[in-house]
Amino acid sequence: MATQQELYNELVEQLKQTALLGSCASLLGWDEQTNLPPGGAEHRANQLSLLAGMTHELATDKRIGELLSELENCNEPIEANSPLAANLREARRAYDRATKLPRKLVEEMSRVTTLSQQAWIASRKKSDLQEFLPWLKQVIALKREEAEAIGYEGGVPYDALLDDYEPAAKTVDVQTVFATLRDELVQLNAEIRDSGKQPDLSIITRSYPIEAQKKFSRKAAEAIGFDFDRGRIDIAAHPFCSGIGPGDCRLTTRYDEHHFPGAFFGTLHESGHGMYEQGLDPAAFGTPMGNATSLGIHESQSRMWENSVGRSKAFWKHLYPEAQATFPEALSDVSLDNFYAAINDVRPSFIRVEADEVTYNLHIMLRFELEQLLISGELEPEDVETVWNETFEKFFGITPPDASQGCLQDIHWSAGLLGYFPTYALGNMYAAHFYQQAETDLGDLDAQFARGEFGPLKTWLNENIHSRGKQYPAAELVQVVTGESLSHKPLVKQLRTKFNEIYGL
Amino acid sequence: MATQQELYNELVEQLKQTALLGSCASLLGWDEQTNLPPGGAEHRANQLSLLAGMTHELATDKRIGELLSELENCNEPIEANSPLAANLREARRAYDRATKLPRKLVEEMSRVTTLSQQAWIASRKKSDLQEFLPWLKQVIALKREEAEAIGYEGGVPYDALLDDYEPAAKTVDVQTVFATLRDELVQLNAEIRDSGKQPDLSIITRSYPIEAQKKFSRKAAEAIGFDFDRGRIDIAAHPFCSGIGPGDCRLTTRYDEHHFPGAFFGTLHESGHGMYEQGLDPAAFGTPMGNATSLGIHESQSRMWENSVGRSKAFWKHLYPEAQATFPEALSDVSLDNFYAAINDVRPSFIRVEADEVTYNLHIMLRFELEQLLISGELEPEDVETVWNETFEKFFGITPPDASQGCLQDIHWSAGLLGYFPTYALGNMYAAHFYQQAETDLGDLDAQFARGEFGPLKTWLNENIHSRGKQYPAAELVQVVTGESLSHKPLVKQLRTKFNEIYGL
Repeated sequence: MATQQELYNELVEQLKQTALLGSCASLLGWDEQTNLPPGGAEHRANQLSLLAGMTHELATDKRIGELLSELENCNEPIEANSPLAANLREARRAYDRATKLPRKLVEEMSRVTTLSQQAWIASRKKSDLQEFLPWLKQVIALKREEAEAIGYEGGVPYDALLDDYEPAAKTVDVQTVFATLRDELVQLNAEIRDSGKQPDLSIITRSYPIEAQKKFSRKAAEAIGFDFDRGRIDIAAHPFCSGIGPGDCRLTTRYDEHHFPGAFFGTLHESGHGMYEQGLDPAAFGTPMGNATSLGIHESQSRMWENSVGRSKAFWKHLYPEAQATFPEALSDVSLDNFYAAINDVRPSFIRVEADEVTYNLHIMLRFELEQLLISGELEPEDVETVWNETFEKFFGITPPDASQGCLQDIHWSAGLLGYFPTYALGNMYAAHFYQQAETDLGDLDAQFARGEFGPLKTWLNENIHSRGKQYPAAELVQVVTGESLSHKPLVKQLRTKFNEIYGL
Repeated sequence: MATQQELYNELVEQLKQTALLGSCASLLGWDEQTNLPPGGAEHRANQLSLLAGMTHELATDKRIGELLSELENCNEPIEANSPLAANLREARRAYDRATKLPRKLVEEMSRVTTLSQQAWIASRKKSDLQEFLPWLKQVIALKREEAEAIGYEGGVPYDALLDDYEPAAKTVDVQTVFATLRDELVQLNAEIRDSGKQPDLSIITRSYPIEAQKKFSRKAAEAIGFDFDRGRIDIAAHPFCSGIGPGDCRLTTRYDEHHFPGAFFGTLHESGHGMYEQGLDPAAFGTPMGNATSLGIHESQSRMWENSVGRSKAFWKHLYPEAQATFPEALSDVSLDNFYAAINDVRPSFIRVEADEVTYNLHIMLRFELEQLLISGELEPEDVETVWNETFEKFFGITPPDASQGCLQDIHWSAGLLGYFPTYALGNMYAAHFYQQAETDLGDLDAQFARGEFGPLKTWLNENIHSRGKQYPAAELVQVVTGESLSHKPLVKQLRTKFNEIYGL
């Protein structure tokens, strides 16, 4: 009879092998966004489809199922919340999910989404849905097939997709917390609109030479703690972070000479993701303990560095003199207060990734609504643009002038990432919980930022979030770290404190 | 009973699947040289080792062996030199070779050579063999193990390695043709040295701003026919060309502000390789008919574009005005004749990839000698630097001032590419054969180049070499295309014609 330890070792080896092959696909996926010549798209789709199929084969190997069963039925005790317990729990989850998906569907999803992303890029450039539409239809059909294969309760197929990104989260719970949050945000947004205060937005659209932006934002990423010996940053149509594996985490951003916040806060955002990846235990690579808890928790890290840190007054007290020296043409005649107000301007706008902290979550709620309709079949892909624009008008009071500023702006649907968007708003709420607790534990964070000290917060996150991997599910992690359950309150409190002051509410 | 066509279709599917997985490793290998953060080296080694093992598994699948046997014993006739005949012949070759190598050795080779390349980069930077030496020992030991596993006749283990790059070539034949070539080159080199003519080398080491070099060499690559919609060029420590798959071929080069020829002719050279890859039949991807004949034939393409075209007077008649406009500081006061003489300067030098057309092959012969000794065990890796320097002194009359200009200059040994070097000199000889025939078929090539017309030569190569894939083995291809057998004569004739004129011999 094999001992618990022997069974566990074999399981871990199998999981690592699977993750290692999966990480090859990650690199090919990153390369597709950053380097792939147009002519190579079809071959890349074939490569990724093969890797997806082979990885699926490894992930659903019968031996993993046997090992899991034997370990679950083992007489030796398993300590609660131990790495063994967590790995067993999460490996079971992943195995059960994977075995429900036929290899053919996995390969087809990979092939279609690779080509679909190329069509999306072309469509987005032309700001015309037509080229992308047939691909979107295929993606939606495949995601509906996936939901059916996974299974769901209560007639909510969206649950089956959401669960892939935010394990154990339920659509109905997200709807509930979003509804409360939405009321608060709409109220705050209205007060800001009526405050009569208008920052000078010309400040952030002056000329910021791209080479200088590159250097400046890279330096900021280094300052907050992203390690470029174990990572890099490149240009891509859509900003993202890809943790290829231990020692190799890659960020992307995009530069616009006449829009400073896009690349700068985008870089801080992706650095936040990257620092999570870099903070995972490399020895646990391939096992749940070496993986991020959930996408919501991942997003809590990116949003915290982007907003709670990067858009704070304290951060700019430290960095603004250097910003002025780097962009003299744009900033030499601008006061810190006016700059701070401009980068914290709140107003309805079209592009989610460039939205302010208050309206951002409304962008998410719009996508969350549309996705549910697409997956339930109540909304046809050909009607997406119309319904997007109508809902946008309802939420924001403005209508996107074209598809590239509307339903074509995000890569997610082309990449098959349906069920993913809600994790962004969950992440904002998690971030507020964590930040509040970090401040309780570490004292005045603003004072530290003003001195250029980001190490304490980073270390706190390393210890409390990153190094724990999937030890706890997201909801439990928030409990363990902060003693509280997820709520909209810390986020609303944080936003109120900041924007009441800026807008004199 | 399955028909010949059915068996063949199944074989082709298996070969394509194997090549598709192999092409994922190609991308990871390219990325390792161009983008990998230092911290990611170990993970990359693990990834490549896994892919090598899995690819080996596919390549040695018993089913391939069965299909080959059934096809070989099929009653239906097989037309000589048909795609079926060629694919069958070469798939058998590859299968027999692969099945002789245990998966463990393949994985270990991949893992060791990935890490070894990182150590080589570090050693080369410091110009100190120490860090690389333990890796070199491992690589040599593994290559000796490989030679034993493959098997060889007449006590020449080097044959087993050479055969991997130049199928069917024998060490003894290479020794013979190299010996004759060497005598001719030594004689030509001595005459040039004694001619008293010395081009003004300061011309090519003036300031050539790197951004301008990038644009200029890219434009030249485009002009001769490299398709950037199906490829790209990046910076790497060592210039190379990687054909990832249909529509995706990647070149690398390196820039030095004060050495114009390095990046420029390097780019033409790699473009020559790239145009071969881009000229392969995409529908035949993964089968021998969709693959280059041999590395020697590959090198004939790169050297032809680099030297017969790129270093010709006619080429610069066309391009020199633009070169002067691009690099006014360096070239405005330099005549075409003086520039032409400078880029064709012949003299002993340390770096192979920057060597002139006459002494280049002596660099190869040195490596060919040392490799045979390393593989036979007559030379220990710790003695490589000493023996390199002694042999260099013997061949060139000068001694490398340090290891980075000596035995550490090439990536090949760190990458496990032993048996590869001789294909470079074979390539030079093949190139001269092909160029002579192209001129017979196409008329005055110089006149075409002077008008900026490179299409006829490219199309000739597409038709006569590229699109044929592995239809014929290298030696036979030369016969089929030119009616001649491999000889040193066309190359010597070509060099004599050119350098007699330049040096007034």
